[in-house]
Amino acid sequence: VPRRSFWGWGNEEDALAPAERDAVGQMLAARLGGEAPAPIAPPKIDEVTLGAPRFALPASLAHLGHVDARTRAGHAYGKAFRDVARGLARDFAAAPDVVAFPADEDDVRRLLDFCAEARVAAIPYGGGSSVVGGVEARLPASRGFAGALSIDLAKLAGVREVDVASRAARVGGGTLGPALEDALRPHGLTLRHFPQSFEFSTLGGWIATRAGGHFATLATHIDDSVEAVRVVTPTGLCATRRLPASGAGPSPERLFIGSEGALGVVTEAWVRLHERPRFRASATLRYVSFSAACRAARALAQSGLYPTNCRVLDAAEAQNAMQGDGSANLLLVAFESSDHALEPWIARALEIAKGEGAELEQGSYKVKDGGAGAREGAAGAWRQMFLRGPYLRDALVTLGYVVETFETAITWDRFDSFSAAVRERAERVAREVTGGEVVVACRVTHVYPDGAAPYFTVIGKGKGAASMAKQWDEIKAAVSEVIVAEGGTISHHHATGRDHMPGYEKERAEPFARALAAVKRELDPAGVMNPGVLV
Amino acid sequence: VPRRSFWGWGNEEDALAPAERDAVGQMLAARLGGEAPAPIAPPKIDEVTLGAPRFALPASLAHLGHVDARTRAGHAYGKAFRDVARGLARDFAAAPDVVAFPADEDDVRRLLDFCAEARVAAIPYGGGSSVVGGVEARLPASRGFAGALSIDLAKLAGVREVDVASRAARVGGGTLGPALEDALRPHGLTLRHFPQSFEFSTLGGWIATRAGGHFATLATHIDDSVEAVRVVTPTGLCATRRLPASGAGPSPERLFIGSEGALGVVTEAWVRLHERPRFRASATLRYVSFSAACRAARALAQSGLYPTNCRVLDAAEAQNAMQGDGSANLLLVAFESSDHALEPWIARALEIAKGEGAELEQGSYKVKDGGAGAREGAAGAWRQMFLRGPYLRDALVTLGYVVETFETAITWDRFDSFSAAVRERAERVAREVTGGEVVVACRVTHVYPDGAAPYFTVIGKGKGAASMAKQWDEIKAAVSEVIVAEGGTISHHHATGRDHMPGYEKERAEPFARALAAVKRELDPAGVMNPGVLV
Repeated sequence: VPRRSFWGWGNEEDALAPAERDAVGQMLAARLGGEAPAPIAPPKIDEVTLGAPRFALPASLAHLGHVDARTRAGHAYGKAFRDVARGLARDFAAAPDVVAFPADEDDVRRLLDFCAEARVAAIPYGGGSSVVGGVEARLPASRGFAGALSIDLAKLAGVREVDVASRAARVGGGTLGPALEDALRPHGLTLRHFPQSFEFSTLGGWIATRAGGHFATLATHIDDSVEAVRVVTPTGLCATRRLPASGAGPSPERLFIGSEGALGVVTEAWVRLHERPRFRASATLRYVSFSAACRAARALAQSGLYPTNCRVLDAAEAQNAMQGDGSANLLLVAFESSDHALEPWIARALEIAKGEGAELEQGSYKVKDGGAGAREGAAGAWRQMFLRGPYLRDALVTLGYVVETFETAITWDRFDSFSAAVRERAERVAREVTGGEVVVACRVTHVYPDGAAPYFTVIGKGKGAASMAKQWDEIKAAVSEVIVAEGGTISHHHATGRDHMPGYEKERAEPFARALAAVKRELDPAGVMNPGVLV
Repeated sequence: VPRRSFWGWGNEEDALAPAERDAVGQMLAARLGGEAPAPIAPPKIDEVTLGAPRFALPASLAHLGHVDARTRAGHAYGKAFRDVARGLARDFAAAPDVVAFPADEDDVRRLLDFCAEARVAAIPYGGGSSVVGGVEARLPASRGFAGALSIDLAKLAGVREVDVASRAARVGGGTLGPALEDALRPHGLTLRHFPQSFEFSTLGGWIATRAGGHFATLATHIDDSVEAVRVVTPTGLCATRRLPASGAGPSPERLFIGSEGALGVVTEAWVRLHERPRFRASATLRYVSFSAACRAARALAQSGLYPTNCRVLDAAEAQNAMQGDGSANLLLVAFESSDHALEPWIARALEIAKGEGAELEQGSYKVKDGGAGAREGAAGAWRQMFLRGPYLRDALVTLGYVVETFETAITWDRFDSFSAAVRERAERVAREVTGGEVVVACRVTHVYPDGAAPYFTVIGKGKGAASMAKQWDEIKAAVSEVIVAEGGTISHHHATGRDHMPGYEKERAEPFARALAAVKRELDPAGVMNPGVLV
């Protein structure tokens, strides 16, 4: 069994090997110019100092709790740059007092009862991949909590029922991506929800955070895949009815999708599935201008062709992804189907894409009928690199670089000016904060008929373990401000957590904030659910 | 200017002519056998007795109010069978005391302030096409209301801004379907939301009720077309941000979509549009069994072809729609596109449909490129008949028939047994209540990968104006019971209103009911917004 890192991404054994890490570091140093920053040694668990737990679980629940340093430190943070940077600084101040592993819904209920009575903050924990401080016990001092309990849903995992006729499955909230897909594969089905965190995030976490997957159009977020949900709230189980659709009152599911643990714990859901694809068609196109590539993406989003993938990489991002030398912007377009050959779809998509001045990359237009799956060939290589991304990020952080992403969404009418304003502000603040050259790259991850989701990566030099988190916080504050001021959303698919609260409070309408607070008071009267998040 | 009927559907001048009405009546009498029921004379406004208004608007708002009998009677009910039947019985007991026509959001705000202060029930009114008692002042006696104010949004109408790049428009909540489409047509755009109430329902009403339109797949409900919404609540304006998508907290729009006037008044929305279609392809297929036709619809829903129309008519429904003699079940499948010719789509759809044993109707497979619009040819004829449906219903009611519909949604695994159970119960109770033969017909109006929405029509003999509403209520109570007991939803696209509250209360999870009540207390502390609905 591989061992999970307590401070960085994924499994310890899957981290970049030193040689690979150094090679990437040298490439980056060449790109940024000047001196490379000072590498930082990864922390060892015996270097980590944690305070003694401030409470203990009652006898009836004690068997669910763990208080060893590795478990507590491993549940202290999500996996944002600032989390990894704090880990490298040996700062695990936010570690929960106790980590509980409930075995069923009744355990969850009893844990929440205990938290409400003992005034302990209850922090639901799925895969722990939050990049917005969503699983961190950053407790408001004024609220007088007796401590923090991390509730790890790992044992509420598994596919419990498959309804092949309706292409749906009943799945435990704690189910990780690979386990979910492994269980569905024998039925010829897939959820096909592939966030970059896929290997280390859970269905319950996806639902709680409105996670974005790898469909570029249609079911971009988990929202559309949730048929019914079970949420254990401090005042009772909320189990919604399995329905393909309903017009009876506001959607009950949608109140809990994106509730980020502030209302309860997502213990189970019925999710809508897809038959596994048998047909694939894809193309990569080169554009001189980012704007033209995005116009092509817009035309595809509005075409009614519904490409499975429709991704724009600006020149810097293409270089980051080792697709090109930084001289061209790329548009990747792909279709998948379990039902029909895709020649007409890709042919029309290419007409559209070329209409905006694209040059087709040599040999990059492929149609496959009944051919290789997503795990094989070029698609498999890309998938592997995509899933390796966070390991690469960690390697760069240990090499002393500030490297992080942020993402948003905006309507097409403002897309060009908005993207330019965000990019300009990001470059400026990153230069100020790092005192050197920076890379700011942009890709468009999801497209809609009425807008798109640009995703930015910022890389610059860090000033050592002790100050890197603060460096990023300055960059993040500046870009968050411009994103919200220019009409975007503080997050297209990374949720709100604690880090996004200032932007979220500006973005949302005041009566809706009051409505959410009222729901919270009703369902969580003691205010112990993931305090500091959403409300 | 045509005059709206104060008791029945639409415009007085568009009602069925006596000869047409009688011809339809004779056909129906032949089908049901035995004696036809006794026709009922439509009411005249001077036959209607209304109590004196129990309150008056204050001087500053008096110019917005109307108290004449025609206006009050015309706002007493929606347009369900039971509303028309009560109208024919000269029963307008639920008429509001005053009908106000605000000219802008500030008028709405001041009207709500008045209602809260004066303890007057505020009933938002769009086109008045509710079939679930959604706009009726059925006030709980225990709540001590001083009266009821119908707030007609007719003047908050119009397309105010069009964003062609994002294919979106900012539209007043009181905008009726035809006015909306007329304003979008010069831009080459369409909302393409065509409920049967299209001519007499409004964008705000669609949003408040989660209305279903005429897309059989994908954007079946208005929900998916709402980019941002403005709702005047008693405690302030809730204006959400225009975004193509977001992952920041639970969707604020989704809390108000389906809120049925219980939280506030939908005054405006940004809606997502489509380019007007230039390509069309359609086919009609015949099946010996309803079940086989539904299996084909399921396969189409799961194919990823996303037909614009995918409708199953059972043999009786086909006969109702004057498509056949009642010997075959029909599947209508159609595609539309503004972008591409549809031959590959329809060709594959026919392969799928024939795979379930379909026989293609002679001459019914059509592909049109750049051809006739929805208002011309066979499609235009069907559209005309669809929109005439409620007029036909009214004609049958005046002829003394009980004739009404109900609809629901269910996952595919239970579709066959569920539909059979609902149909059996509907036939049994309708026979009991009418004491004679009945027609129970079923069509499937919307299909999803995980289920479908069956829509039932019941026709039987009435026992005279005074008891017809009660006859229907008995049928409705019985079928609602079986729908909810068998796992369906009390409404796929007709909302909840007052008539569906018993079923809705059984269907929804208790913590969600408490959450909604908490939101209501927060946004509408005086509890004056559409009392009796949702909470």
